[in-house]
Amino acid sequence: MTLNIGVIGCGAIGQDHIRRLTRTLSGAQVVAVTDINPQLAQDAVSSYGLNAEIYSDGINLILASDVQAVLVASWGPTHEEYVLKSIEQGKPVFCEKPLAVTAEGCKRIVDAEQAHGRRLVQVGFMRPYDDGYRALKSVIDSGTIGAPLMLHCAHRNQSVGERYTTDMAITDTLIHELDVLRWLLNEDYVSTQVVYPKKTRNASIHLADPQIVMLETVSGVRIDVEVFVNCQYGYDIQCEVVGEKGTARLPDPPAVALKNAALHSLPVMTDWKERFIASYDVELQAFIDGVGAGALTGPSAWDGYSAAIAADACVLAQQSGKVERIKIAERPTFYSN
Amino acid sequence: MTLNIGVIGCGAIGQDHIRRLTRTLSGAQVVAVTDINPQLAQDAVSSYGLNAEIYSDGINLILASDVQAVLVASWGPTHEEYVLKSIEQGKPVFCEKPLAVTAEGCKRIVDAEQAHGRRLVQVGFMRPYDDGYRALKSVIDSGTIGAPLMLHCAHRNQSVGERYTTDMAITDTLIHELDVLRWLLNEDYVSTQVVYPKKTRNASIHLADPQIVMLETVSGVRIDVEVFVNCQYGYDIQCEVVGEKGTARLPDPPAVALKNAALHSLPVMTDWKERFIASYDVELQAFIDGVGAGALTGPSAWDGYSAAIAADACVLAQQSGKVERIKIAERPTFYSN
Amino acid sequence: MTLNIGVIGCGAIGQDHIRRLTRTLSGAQVVAVTDINPQLAQDAVSSYGLNAEIYSDGINLILASDVQAVLVASWGPTHEEYVLKSIEQGKPVFCEKPLAVTAEGCKRIVDAEQAHGRRLVQVGFMRPYDDGYRALKSVIDSGTIGAPLMLHCAHRNQSVGERYTTDMAITDTLIHELDVLRWLLNEDYVSTQVVYPKKTRNASIHLADPQIVMLETVSGVRIDVEVFVNCQYGYDIQCEVVGEKGTARLPDPPAVALKNAALHSLPVMTDWKERFIASYDVELQAFIDGVGAGALTGPSAWDGYSAAIAADACVLAQQSGKVERIKIAERPTFYSN
Amino acid sequence: MTLNIGVIGCGAIGQDHIRRLTRTLSGAQVVAVTDINPQLAQDAVSSYGLNAEIYSDGINLILASDVQAVLVASWGPTHEEYVLKSIEQGKPVFCEKPLAVTAEGCKRIVDAEQAHGRRLVQVGFMRPYDDGYRALKSVIDSGTIGAPLMLHCAHRNQSVGERYTTDMAITDTLIHELDVLRWLLNEDYVSTQVVYPKKTRNASIHLADPQIVMLETVSGVRIDVEVFVNCQYGYDIQCEVVGEKGTARLPDPPAVALKNAALHSLPVMTDWKERFIASYDVELQAFIDGVGAGALTGPSAWDGYSAAIAADACVLAQQSGKVERIKIAERPTFYSN
Repeated sequence: MTLNIGVIGCGAIGQDHIRRLTRTLSGAQVVAVTDINPQLAQDAVSSYGLNAEIYSDGINLILASDVQAVLVASWGPTHEEYVLKSIEQGKPVFCEKPLAVTAEGCKRIVDAEQAHGRRLVQVGFMRPYDDGYRALKSVIDSGTIGAPLMLHCAHRNQSVGERYTTDMAITDTLIHELDVLRWLLNEDYVSTQVVYPKKTRNASIHLADPQIVMLETVSGVRIDVEVFVNCQYGYDIQCEVVGEKGTARLPDPPAVALKNAALHSLPVMTDWKERFIASYDVELQAFIDGVGAGALTGPSAWDGYSAAIAADACVLAQQSGKVERIKIAERPTFYSN
Repeated sequence: MTLNIGVIGCGAIGQDHIRRLTRTLSGAQVVAVTDINPQLAQDAVSSYGLNAEIYSDGINLILASDVQAVLVASWGPTHEEYVLKSIEQGKPVFCEKPLAVTAEGCKRIVDAEQAHGRRLVQVGFMRPYDDGYRALKSVIDSGTIGAPLMLHCAHRNQSVGERYTTDMAITDTLIHELDVLRWLLNEDYVSTQVVYPKKTRNASIHLADPQIVMLETVSGVRIDVEVFVNCQYGYDIQCEVVGEKGTARLPDPPAVALKNAALHSLPVMTDWKERFIASYDVELQAFIDGVGAGALTGPSAWDGYSAAIAADACVLAQQSGKVERIKIAERPTFYSN
Repeated sequence: MTLNIGVIGCGAIGQDHIRRLTRTLSGAQVVAVTDINPQLAQDAVSSYGLNAEIYSDGINLILASDVQAVLVASWGPTHEEYVLKSIEQGKPVFCEKPLAVTAEGCKRIVDAEQAHGRRLVQVGFMRPYDDGYRALKSVIDSGTIGAPLMLHCAHRNQSVGERYTTDMAITDTLIHELDVLRWLLNEDYVSTQVVYPKKTRNASIHLADPQIVMLETVSGVRIDVEVFVNCQYGYDIQCEVVGEKGTARLPDPPAVALKNAALHSLPVMTDWKERFIASYDVELQAFIDGVGAGALTGPSAWDGYSAAIAADACVLAQQSGKVERIKIAERPTFYSN
Repeated sequence: MTLNIGVIGCGAIGQDHIRRLTRTLSGAQVVAVTDINPQLAQDAVSSYGLNAEIYSDGINLILASDVQAVLVASWGPTHEEYVLKSIEQGKPVFCEKPLAVTAEGCKRIVDAEQAHGRRLVQVGFMRPYDDGYRALKSVIDSGTIGAPLMLHCAHRNQSVGERYTTDMAITDTLIHELDVLRWLLNEDYVSTQVVYPKKTRNASIHLADPQIVMLETVSGVRIDVEVFVNCQYGYDIQCEVVGEKGTARLPDPPAVALKNAALHSLPVMTDWKERFIASYDVELQAFIDGVGAGALTGPSAWDGYSAAIAADACVLAQQSGKVERIKIAERPTFYSN
């Protein structure tokens, strides 16, 4: 009952997944690895004592008969090909973000998967597996705060490098909110607008930072997301849901409260990798369990496609300064929750 | 050294000011009262044991030789006349909101006061006297969080009656934020936009509730204010300032933390009158002290005028759905802080 | 209706009371002052522009015909004499802590006051006038947490000087808890025990710091008070009441929450004078109003006496290491709440 | 590299461990089970689809050649025998609390393990594996708050049944604090005293509830632990460490903050099983990993023995009302951390 997994891409994220498959999670083992840099694949095998074959490329790995499921953690532009090949082979595939680098690419995957007739793809959106977001969704769904009317969100990074460009505020950063807020509200977006506050002196010359993205959903819920990637003080993810009769707020990570040097303080994380670290374990265990149960339930190719469409509209809104429509088709029954 | 004050308007707010002048504050006494309903004036004299003359109207009260300063707490549309008359008489005047019911009326007061040559008017904006806002301003001014870039605010009332109309979200509710945020940032607004989230079922049929007002300041600071006047759960005023290197948040009123019935809770106020109750004392003591010192420092006629201009633009933005400009002239030296 | 007050003692505390009587509170004026150092009395008159007579000593001040009430803020050992003289003269007297330096002295005052037939004395215990403690008492009295069973308290000072001795942890520090906790629970103490935790390196060689004082009340409520006067990080007063069905906690002073430099923090006060600053105004206004109404309701001579007895027992317990009885007589009807 | 585990006891706790070994953790499988009620053993095999032998008794299970490690989750009085037998067989054993029902029994295990020459026993104290306690220990060890001087703790249960007796406040409840606080401070206790506050009306007639246990450590740190097992409002574990220059507090479990119905609230857990649920996974994974690495590092037989001695002294203190000594021998090098 152990699932044999082949891992494509042995960089930082790939190795991290190999580690959890090997040392933390239950019910899977890594039997095949590949990387464009063969040394990285070899290192992964050595580091984790894997009993795994090293393949020359991802396609061969997918085709290998003992590989029952595929994990794609390679360079973004390669994702689409590997996911399509996995579908073709009828093999479940866990694909890191992005599912594909264009909405059209996502659409091709969605079409292929539907043609295949059964869900095979889980996208690596981990926030729906975070305890905090799940507790928040549970509160919303319980009706305690009434129907949601507004969401006030913030996505703040301590700082980003010179290579971070204005559109990456959408494609690399907001993309997580685009996925998780849609899941939280269980509805799609219809429009987006981006405004630029006074720019921080701590951003590089070419980068607009912070930005405020305002989204509207099908039912009229208004969402504002502050994206501020050079906030200096830490990595901080905030989400407040305002409903008809109350509000609910995403919990901060638990921490030891200190009284020291005239301050009563809690630490704020600075390393984004720590913030949702537990949910990576949960999402991948869910993939393993879902494959075992014959039914994937996590973020689907449709979710990846929808996030891509929304991101495209937000990038357009960044440029136009206007309200832009987000045209997501109705969710096919195939992908119904 | 006791300041003799004449009070115009003995309704709820007027009586409250009479009470604090008589029983709480130092250095003033009420020597004259008037109300359009003479019984209310008589009641005020009796209730507080005033040694005060009852006048038939506000103009006569202002003219009375023993009245050294005037407090205007009558019906809004009468304010302009009483303030102008006080200025004409060279008597300091504390005027409850609104200073005048139109920006033009405010402008006439500003012009008259400048012509008189010395500040005589204090407008009844009390939030700048609230300990919480003052502490917040102190943090901003200290540089601890760097230059402010964004403000995220909320003004939530438990519920409003049938007579509350969509524009009152600006003129009765947002008006407080328009005053205090401008004071907090020490700069004027340049534009405003209003968006309407999904409407709560708890608002009357004719009322758009909630609303989100987005303001921009001269330096580019972006402010979003959620105005939600049927939020059901309480009276809640929130203000988060996001600066270049940190954030600061308006304190909630102190309260006893309870653990009870599976909840760890703090009470949320439901009566708006309690929220800034202490600041009414402080603002009026400041007026008394300012008159005594020959220099008023609180919210000026210019501040009242500026708030009126901003409010007019916000009402226009409610109707147009577009970004509207807010054209506040440069602050005259006469009114420099 | 203005109360003419004579102030004995124009040191720091006396001047502070003169300031609030003159500039902040309503219904009183300082008409007489005295200090063992005549210059201090003169300075007070000048600083606050008092229209006040300077007396050569406290007794003469009390005897002055225009002095309607007395405020005693002189050196502790002189309090008893001035309070007794005020009672003899039938003049209301507000006496700073301690009421007398021995329980016997307090008893003489209690006896004199009862003999006089009407309450004339208010002791300067200000914590029962603090909004936080009042809110806490209100929660207890409401029954929300059920009958109190335990109190966990802490009294922490940033640091104390070399002259602070082990017994001062009781007589200067715990004395405030002895007064306010008795008021909070509305019952007397029956026993006390003191234990000495590991000593901090930041205390002077002769000082036991921290200490834990464990009190028991008539009904069996157990109170532990940590007294830690060199805690380094600030001035911090904590009080948690554990009842049969819930807990309630004394609010911390409101403050601006900051996110900055990887910390989410609230400031902790370091200056003890700031912590209860508002309650000094309230207690003294209550005295003025009480005199006007002919009925003092604040901390009485009996409360001062009871606190003195409890403090004596705690000092004994410090020395004996044993459980010591606290023998407070039943509250006379004269002093019933 | 999969560890073959035999589980003795298939009641609630045993089944829970079987579940996590089978579905959650990495590197182990259940190959043998037994229970005094054979049906429970059969049920466990069925429920979790185990490929496991069912044994007639624990001794036979321990002797089975394919059983590489033993998990003891049977009735407390049977633990000692199973642990000693496992040691005799040189098989690592994870033993649920208590290690043995007497300190003498624990001593026999300690002696046997030392005679064997290598650590084989891990006791099921899970709190040292809780993220919150680990973060707290990390803060203490970092020196941020200086040397610990006092701990203020509370262990509150919503309610207990009629069968819960006064001594169980020590043996079933305080036992967790006795283990984890000793680990937190890295030192042993030297004395204990128990006082009984006013009794709650919600406790059964024979039960003293609440109780306050005061412990002293070798270096003089004073610990007070409130044990209140009918607190009504929830399951609540508190721990505040007061050091020479600051304090640190055990985090509460993260939760969604709600504003609703005039309350700003966080839920308090009511089910104790939820509070440390994650740490059961961590402790058992640590056992598996420790066996694999040939070095157990979790709570040792010595820790179980020390907790038993401390618990015995606390029960004595309950009865005597006096300060009782806790005589824990010096930690043998064999058990050094």
